[in-house]
Amino acid sequence: MNKNLKDLVIIGSGPAGLSAAIYAQRAMLDQIVIEKEMFSGGQIINTDRIDNYLGLYGENGYDLAVKFREHADALEVPFVEGKVESIEDKGEYKEIHLEDGATVDAKAVIIATGAKHRLLNVKGEKEFTGAGVSYCATCDGAFFKNKTVAVVGGGDVALEDALYLSNICEKVYLVHRRDELRGAKILQSRIFETKNIEFKPSYEVSEIYGEDIVTGAKLLNKKTGEEEELSLSAVFIAVGMEPQSEFIKGLVDTDKTGYIIATEDCRTSMDKVYAVGDIRTKSLRQVVTAVADGAVAITSIEQDTK
Amino acid sequence: MNKNLKDLVIIGSGPAGLSAAIYAQRAMLDQIVIEKEMFSGGQIINTDRIDNYLGLYGENGYDLAVKFREHADALEVPFVEGKVESIEDKGEYKEIHLEDGATVDAKAVIIATGAKHRLLNVKGEKEFTGAGVSYCATCDGAFFKNKTVAVVGGGDVALEDALYLSNICEKVYLVHRRDELRGAKILQSRIFETKNIEFKPSYEVSEIYGEDIVTGAKLLNKKTGEEEELSLSAVFIAVGMEPQSEFIKGLVDTDKTGYIIATEDCRTSMDKVYAVGDIRTKSLRQVVTAVADGAVAITSIEQDTK
Repeated sequence: MNKNLKDLVIIGSGPAGLSAAIYAQRAMLDQIVIEKEMFSGGQIINTDRIDNYLGLYGENGYDLAVKFREHADALEVPFVEGKVESIEDKGEYKEIHLEDGATVDAKAVIIATGAKHRLLNVKGEKEFTGAGVSYCATCDGAFFKNKTVAVVGGGDVALEDALYLSNICEKVYLVHRRDELRGAKILQSRIFETKNIEFKPSYEVSEIYGEDIVTGAKLLNKKTGEEEELSLSAVFIAVGMEPQSEFIKGLVDTDKTGYIIATEDCRTSMDKVYAVGDIRTKSLRQVVTAVADGAVAITSIEQDTK
Repeated sequence: MNKNLKDLVIIGSGPAGLSAAIYAQRAMLDQIVIEKEMFSGGQIINTDRIDNYLGLYGENGYDLAVKFREHADALEVPFVEGKVESIEDKGEYKEIHLEDGATVDAKAVIIATGAKHRLLNVKGEKEFTGAGVSYCATCDGAFFKNKTVAVVGGGDVALEDALYLSNICEKVYLVHRRDELRGAKILQSRIFETKNIEFKPSYEVSEIYGEDIVTGAKLLNKKTGEEEELSLSAVFIAVGMEPQSEFIKGLVDTDKTGYIIATEDCRTSMDKVYAVGDIRTKSLRQVVTAVADGAVAITSIEQDTK
């Protein structure tokens, strides 16, 4: 057996990966955490304000990421900067290949690479992210009490977001590029029953504008070619997620979107490979559900490797 | 329909109940939280130090409980002090009966009443709780690196605790009042293979002693009646948990120990009744898994009540 064999390699250091790391450190597993970015924290780095991680009210996402990383640093978790290209099953252990040609061997691997929100790629989107452009209604909806907002998208998440926001906001436009919604029929019928939701079919958002914060959006009617403007306090974009699972395709089972299939215990279809946080199939993707996964995965590893 | 009908009543305000409350508040549900104790926080109030809730490293349990409650207070979550005696299903809503005779009606109920560790009820146990007496190896094991400790109990949790601690501590005594262990055979065989675990069958702990912190315990051999003393830095007590589910027995399905049967989505056998945190069947009972449940339950409620 090679002498550099680690007990555990964690790929990714967002909330899920960092939580797994602190539990692993306290369980005295010989581990390293591999992160491709310069900073730990994953998606929260770009979040303006997080109000729903119990005990840390009203944190800026970047500050919260720093607190999370400092926690891991205080426990002396070892980090390596690098991008994982592939994982090879060697029977007794997994061989992890990095982009720079290096390899790391580990008895167990935790995939914590998360997901990215798909972008609209329109003018103003990047500029106003965190200032009225949001990719998470559950996270940010409460900031727009009694305001007028738009949800962009036509799938289940877009419909759920519109319904969620209809309880909080004065008015919700649901903007979809096709003339029919794609989400579940039951959600569709609720959308049409809700008085303060206005469905805008066959419309594309062509620009989001404002000054310091969003004040409106330009829409293009795809059938007539006509332009329209909406006065808005926020645009919630729900046009899908991209789970970062390319490098592990074919090795563990994923669903058709690319999420790694795993239940609450974080075990995947492959022995000694675990999935935590947004990368796995789950009902709610939030900071706290990711952090919980990290703890649970280490318990599963302890049970599987004794 | 009665005009005082709440959208949601949450019973219990430990980490799970408080997390559910902040998510419910942000979802604009008309809720109240009922707590029987003077303080929110549940079991963590009596925990000396919590090192594994990501982002809040090295917090005293009571201080963490205060932070959690302050988060809910900042969002203006309404609390009521009271003890729930029973819940009655009225079809369209649930009627919640309090000890003082009051009733509250709610469309949805979250049970967050938690569990209590069963006590040994021996001299020194209460005095040294948090100072060497612990009910959670995963939580406190790391504080006893290279020390000698004892685990008391013979079930799965006791065996898992002993194995977990054997990686961290110099030596682990496993003290059990019967001459045979009760836990899974596979765990038993691992216990007997582990060199730094010494099994002490047919022994009862009669006293835990020390000065500011634990220094040892007196054992009584139940077969010979002889007394013995062990020098110890910590005593981990794993003689079972008591889920606080008496008041809901017969209404929702529980397992034989009394835990409410629920999966990751926190739904129980009864429509619109949800179980979060330590009260539900789950693989790992930790602050963060309880907090995650609170978030997930509100998502399930949103899906079920639209």
